[in-house]
Amino acid sequence: MRKPRLFTPGPTPIPEHVMLRMAEPILHHRHSEFVALMGRINAYLQTLFCTKQPVLSLTASGTGAAEAAISTLFQAGEKGLNINNGKFAERWGKMMTVYGMNSVDVPVEWGNAVSEERLREVLKQHPDTACVWLVHSETSTGTYTDIRTMSGIIREIAPDALICIDGITSIGAHECQMDEWGLDVVITGSQKGLMIPPGLAFIALSERAWKKADAHKPRNFYFDLRKAREAWHDNSTPWTPAVTLFVGLESALQMMMSEGMENVWKRHAALSRGLRAGLQSVNLPLYGSSPSHAVTVAHLPEQGGKDFIKLLKNEFGVTVIGGQDALKDVVFRTSHLGYYDEADMLAVLGSIEYALQKLGHKFEAGRSVYAAQRVFMGVE
Amino acid sequence: MRKPRLFTPGPTPIPEHVMLRMAEPILHHRHSEFVALMGRINAYLQTLFCTKQPVLSLTASGTGAAEAAISTLFQAGEKGLNINNGKFAERWGKMMTVYGMNSVDVPVEWGNAVSEERLREVLKQHPDTACVWLVHSETSTGTYTDIRTMSGIIREIAPDALICIDGITSIGAHECQMDEWGLDVVITGSQKGLMIPPGLAFIALSERAWKKADAHKPRNFYFDLRKAREAWHDNSTPWTPAVTLFVGLESALQMMMSEGMENVWKRHAALSRGLRAGLQSVNLPLYGSSPSHAVTVAHLPEQGGKDFIKLLKNEFGVTVIGGQDALKDVVFRTSHLGYYDEADMLAVLGSIEYALQKLGHKFEAGRSVYAAQRVFMGVE
Repeated sequence: MRKPRLFTPGPTPIPEHVMLRMAEPILHHRHSEFVALMGRINAYLQTLFCTKQPVLSLTASGTGAAEAAISTLFQAGEKGLNINNGKFAERWGKMMTVYGMNSVDVPVEWGNAVSEERLREVLKQHPDTACVWLVHSETSTGTYTDIRTMSGIIREIAPDALICIDGITSIGAHECQMDEWGLDVVITGSQKGLMIPPGLAFIALSERAWKKADAHKPRNFYFDLRKAREAWHDNSTPWTPAVTLFVGLESALQMMMSEGMENVWKRHAALSRGLRAGLQSVNLPLYGSSPSHAVTVAHLPEQGGKDFIKLLKNEFGVTVIGGQDALKDVVFRTSHLGYYDEADMLAVLGSIEYALQKLGHKFEAGRSVYAAQRVFMGVE
Repeated sequence: MRKPRLFTPGPTPIPEHVMLRMAEPILHHRHSEFVALMGRINAYLQTLFCTKQPVLSLTASGTGAAEAAISTLFQAGEKGLNINNGKFAERWGKMMTVYGMNSVDVPVEWGNAVSEERLREVLKQHPDTACVWLVHSETSTGTYTDIRTMSGIIREIAPDALICIDGITSIGAHECQMDEWGLDVVITGSQKGLMIPPGLAFIALSERAWKKADAHKPRNFYFDLRKAREAWHDNSTPWTPAVTLFVGLESALQMMMSEGMENVWKRHAALSRGLRAGLQSVNLPLYGSSPSHAVTVAHLPEQGGKDFIKLLKNEFGVTVIGGQDALKDVVFRTSHLGYYDEADMLAVLGSIEYALQKLGHKFEAGRSVYAAQRVFMGVE
């Protein structure tokens, strides 16, 4: 017997009581019970996003939420800057092109966040851009971007640009003060920090983004955010929502509210720091210069690296995932986004050590668990 | 204690073992287990749709599947005929307008299917139409349209028009031979005949529809069916799918495959006929001229009609739903779509009789259950 242990950045593990609540007899979405449930969820989501704006729920993946933003807010011919430092960042640029926007790709070397200088320079070249997309936590490379600082720079140089944040793997892991930092669009997905299965996406728009939305005709039907906003005021959705996922969502959000958002962010920071210390201590160099608190990316062991991920899965029930594109067979990604605690990190490090021994990797056994413990004890 | 009994046309009740399978530890969508599961589902869905074409799964409501068809297949300026005989039919016309199509609305009096003469006449006026939308089972009015006959007429008069079928509440309830009848687009949703929660939609295109799709640029990103088809060949989806719903879907489809599609259709026909006989026998006149096998629409009792639905819900745990728009406070709708059997019809009829007695409605008690029994026994 091996317990399945998922350390992937989406789907992430789901608390057992959340799974079981979703197995209760299904509610009808127009019933008063469901309307009341949506009311509670809507309030929790505003706390999660640190906003007073409606946080709209869509039955779709996070990609759908990005499309809702682009199709609701922008017109063909408008310029959109896309700070592209990974697979997900790349996607938003392609999407703007489908909607006829003049998408300007700003490539940033994988593993890095855009620098302040680079952002300033690009904005000075394109002060007329209608938006700037930034990925708060880029899942393909495990890279964190300091949205607070970057949004200040955007506001200064291109004051009319809407600041669009892909928070798909950051919401719940990193502080994201939508209103205070002046963010115009924030999106996330259900199967990430929110600890429920995939199938829902969430999006909030700032007041000035809503003004822009209201000035235009819709370019999409299912993802027309004006319809979603109208329904939101009745604790409803324009189309049949994924009812069972919302039932699970309430339970998961209640857990986050009880822990408190500051503590949720601190927990993710600690898990991330502990895992990094552990991996480095067993000679697995970290990848990238700006680590996300959602997912940790490290180099595969030099010896037998190609077998490492399969070995973890088959022999220990531990699922981590490999790199994509140029990072294929180079790195592995271990998630600590959502329903994880310190013992999970000790278990994954212990399993990794076990696999490394089987592969003949050179390191001092026990070292990684000790290194992580010291971080969790606050000694380092 | 009252058991919750849902007689709504979506969400429909979910078999207990299907709910519990969805509560198992979540799979990662790139894992071999999930890929194998999608392979089995894809084959079942082709049997369900009676097609050799790929049946693509989208994480969205049925409305999303209609948008996928319209945005993948048609260009701005193309003409689209919309046979509008209810709330859902109406929606597809609005959607074509959002995509810049010249949407021609063909109003049909609620409660009726379009007649052959009317369809011929309209097609002769618009032989250049790029498509014709027909709703196989219109949920707002409980109306069945004979798609087989209508598609023959369309093919004859407007041979180039794509025949687009809203099968959202018909698939599983009514025979729908996609390939044999020459249908070009068929869509359905998960929370209907498929007996799982809302959150998934399904769509298949004919070979000639795919040819049209391939000749155009995408007008939507999330709903670009070409991407979905590409992923389908790898038993995958372009974006993160609603994993748990697919796990439930496999179990639900296995039930349907074991029963056999012919028997599934026959069961729905029998339940529908039994319920209709029951309702008429207690002086609740049926609404409409062409009853769907998915949902039965009858007039509310004249005395206390406004309290009837609430009474059923509060005192008997039985949920039926009222009418929309002009049918509000005029009719009630009782679903028998998906996970229903004969005893469910007897229970709902018995509860309706109980409520009718409380409201002082004039009828002979026990009559409706007897009438339904006679249908189920094959006596009538």
